[in-house]
Amino acid sequence: MTDFGTTTLPYCSFIPAGGDSPRVGVGVGTAILDLSAAAPTIVPAHAALFSDGTLDALLAAGPAVWHEVRTAVAEHVAAAVESLGTIDAREVRLQLPFTVADYVDFYASEHHATNVGRIFRPDGDALTPNWKHLPIGYHGRSGTIVASDTPVRRPAGQRRNGDGSVEFGPSIRLDIEAEVGYVVGTPSTMGEPVAIDQFDQHVFGICVVNDWSARDIQAWEYVPLGPLLGKSFATSVSPWIVPLDALQQSRIAPPERDHDLMPYLRDREPWGLDLELQIELNGTRVSKPTFSSMYWTGAQMLAHMTINGASLRTGDLFASGTVSGAEPGERGSLLELSWNGSEPLTLDDGTTRTYLLDGDTVTISAYAVSDSQPHQYLGAVTGTITAALTTE
Amino acid sequence: MTDFGTTTLPYCSFIPAGGDSPRVGVGVGTAILDLSAAAPTIVPAHAALFSDGTLDALLAAGPAVWHEVRTAVAEHVAAAVESLGTIDAREVRLQLPFTVADYVDFYASEHHATNVGRIFRPDGDALTPNWKHLPIGYHGRSGTIVASDTPVRRPAGQRRNGDGSVEFGPSIRLDIEAEVGYVVGTPSTMGEPVAIDQFDQHVFGICVVNDWSARDIQAWEYVPLGPLLGKSFATSVSPWIVPLDALQQSRIAPPERDHDLMPYLRDREPWGLDLELQIELNGTRVSKPTFSSMYWTGAQMLAHMTINGASLRTGDLFASGTVSGAEPGERGSLLELSWNGSEPLTLDDGTTRTYLLDGDTVTISAYAVSDSQPHQYLGAVTGTITAALTTE
Repeated sequence: MTDFGTTTLPYCSFIPAGGDSPRVGVGVGTAILDLSAAAPTIVPAHAALFSDGTLDALLAAGPAVWHEVRTAVAEHVAAAVESLGTIDAREVRLQLPFTVADYVDFYASEHHATNVGRIFRPDGDALTPNWKHLPIGYHGRSGTIVASDTPVRRPAGQRRNGDGSVEFGPSIRLDIEAEVGYVVGTPSTMGEPVAIDQFDQHVFGICVVNDWSARDIQAWEYVPLGPLLGKSFATSVSPWIVPLDALQQSRIAPPERDHDLMPYLRDREPWGLDLELQIELNGTRVSKPTFSSMYWTGAQMLAHMTINGASLRTGDLFASGTVSGAEPGERGSLLELSWNGSEPLTLDDGTTRTYLLDGDTVTISAYAVSDSQPHQYLGAVTGTITAALTTE
Repeated sequence: MTDFGTTTLPYCSFIPAGGDSPRVGVGVGTAILDLSAAAPTIVPAHAALFSDGTLDALLAAGPAVWHEVRTAVAEHVAAAVESLGTIDAREVRLQLPFTVADYVDFYASEHHATNVGRIFRPDGDALTPNWKHLPIGYHGRSGTIVASDTPVRRPAGQRRNGDGSVEFGPSIRLDIEAEVGYVVGTPSTMGEPVAIDQFDQHVFGICVVNDWSARDIQAWEYVPLGPLLGKSFATSVSPWIVPLDALQQSRIAPPERDHDLMPYLRDREPWGLDLELQIELNGTRVSKPTFSSMYWTGAQMLAHMTINGASLRTGDLFASGTVSGAEPGERGSLLELSWNGSEPLTLDDGTTRTYLLDGDTVTISAYAVSDSQPHQYLGAVTGTITAALTTE
């Protein structure tokens, strides 16, 4: 864990050394404030929210309580940095901090979608006809969303080879997708869309997501109903949920739109977030994806996801899709970084990679950029690939 | 509710007239046995499973307990039909009987997939190249799965017209999909596939599913990542979960395979279920889909869904996809029954339908066929379409 400083104040769920029940924590510097223990003193009216050691009750409590708790924690931290009674973050086990309800993954980076189109449809249009009309997305598997540091077993499955033959085996094109995830707090009513200006009323905060992807499995299965097994084996998330309130200074205008938007996707004051991701593969930094160039904003994704009346539940997670910037060094997947395997990356140890090998460790970290804090740490998600179970 | 007889013994969750806490019930004839009340007497060792009024704890308890409870209930019913202390099913409110974890919808009917291919790709191959290699499926939205009798609001969304223009409005091609759903009880470990012969160890029972579909929204959004808003507004399920144990006599061989299967999809004794669905639109029976002709079996869907190591949770629901038989009168969607609107259906009141109108009520009921019980009622799912919220 890097230094969170004293203003980001992200939330986590941790299990103390030698303990077995989870507790809600707040990241302060390089330490954790035990909020389950401190809440009766610093926010007595809401202490019950933290008794089960997860964020579930806080998420459900809504924006007014989110602000109240954050303000109380910030005042406590400011007044008593020296005597916080914090816990060394290296001594605890961080876990998935909330119960994931539905998981939707979007495809909101124009640079990513364009790169994918160029790789797979070199003679066609890079973007599909619907891409600038709506934020494309699909449902992923909630039950295999895991916290950072959970090992990820290489999946096996069917793939079609270049000669048209179909075979079964461990994935040979195992990839990452560096993404930002939005965590829903307040639920909504089925049948009633959530308007684009209601984003702050429903979304509590963000996390970092690695949407592991088996490109060979995905390529064979995904027509016509989309990805299933190429994605569903594991999705890793950072154990820290950063409240939207901590990112106010990093709001920026999204890229200029070159396409008319339907009214439900038009925001009077559209904002994206000026975030920088960093991807390390076995300790070598291989990319610095920039979130500022995402075409679709979080509020647009939320408005689209509910325009048909689909309701939100506390714990819904929706992610941006792969974050890729305009430059080659800003791409968020190995598919793009190695241009589908044709341009291997060289790591600091001299080895090369196209896709992931067993034993490889990937860490994606996120920073917010603003005038007051040019490099505000937001957490990281790490995972190591273990060998496939069988090679039938 | 039709007569369940005394051997099917399906489970439900109900709220008594004038009450407000849910209770677990068993369907006996046209009545409900209050198992939350009776369990301390008839299965005292497992009475705690029924105290929260849902099936969640029973599902998690596993096959040995499922058999034990079912045997005890069956003996109680056989011994005391006259003095059961049952409740008239018409006086209670049936609700969603378990907490849905992940929802996966398959596409397992060859007749359905062939019809869809012929409608949308008249000059190409009806089936995609992967169709006979693997059961195609995708994740749906768990949070909008609702119990039978919940009204379904017509969704609004984007669609592309024949002239290429894109517009927004209430769906004008609102459809049904008659399906059978499998309810998972016992969870599995992440990273470890569930072998095809382990189906009975994990799946508790079945329900009837109506996967409402907005064809116009779906057609515009689904390339390349599959359906999202065309499906996510609502999925209705029957309130009765029929244990697999009640369907032993209806197991039949699936259709002859004309394609080699990967080892993980090969079952030594493959079985489908001889079920008959009936679809009524405003009281007119418009179709009798036959489940016996489904190409992929439930065990194959489960083996495929987990072959990449994706884990199961208690409450996972996976559905067959639209059930269509070989004959025109056996099709499971209005898309097929009206051949994409070109052949309207005539209802008993003289009106015609291609897709659903506001106020239309659809009921899908299911029956199992066996030598001993040629017409064993398994429950039904009903829903009525209400007008779209806005017509912006």
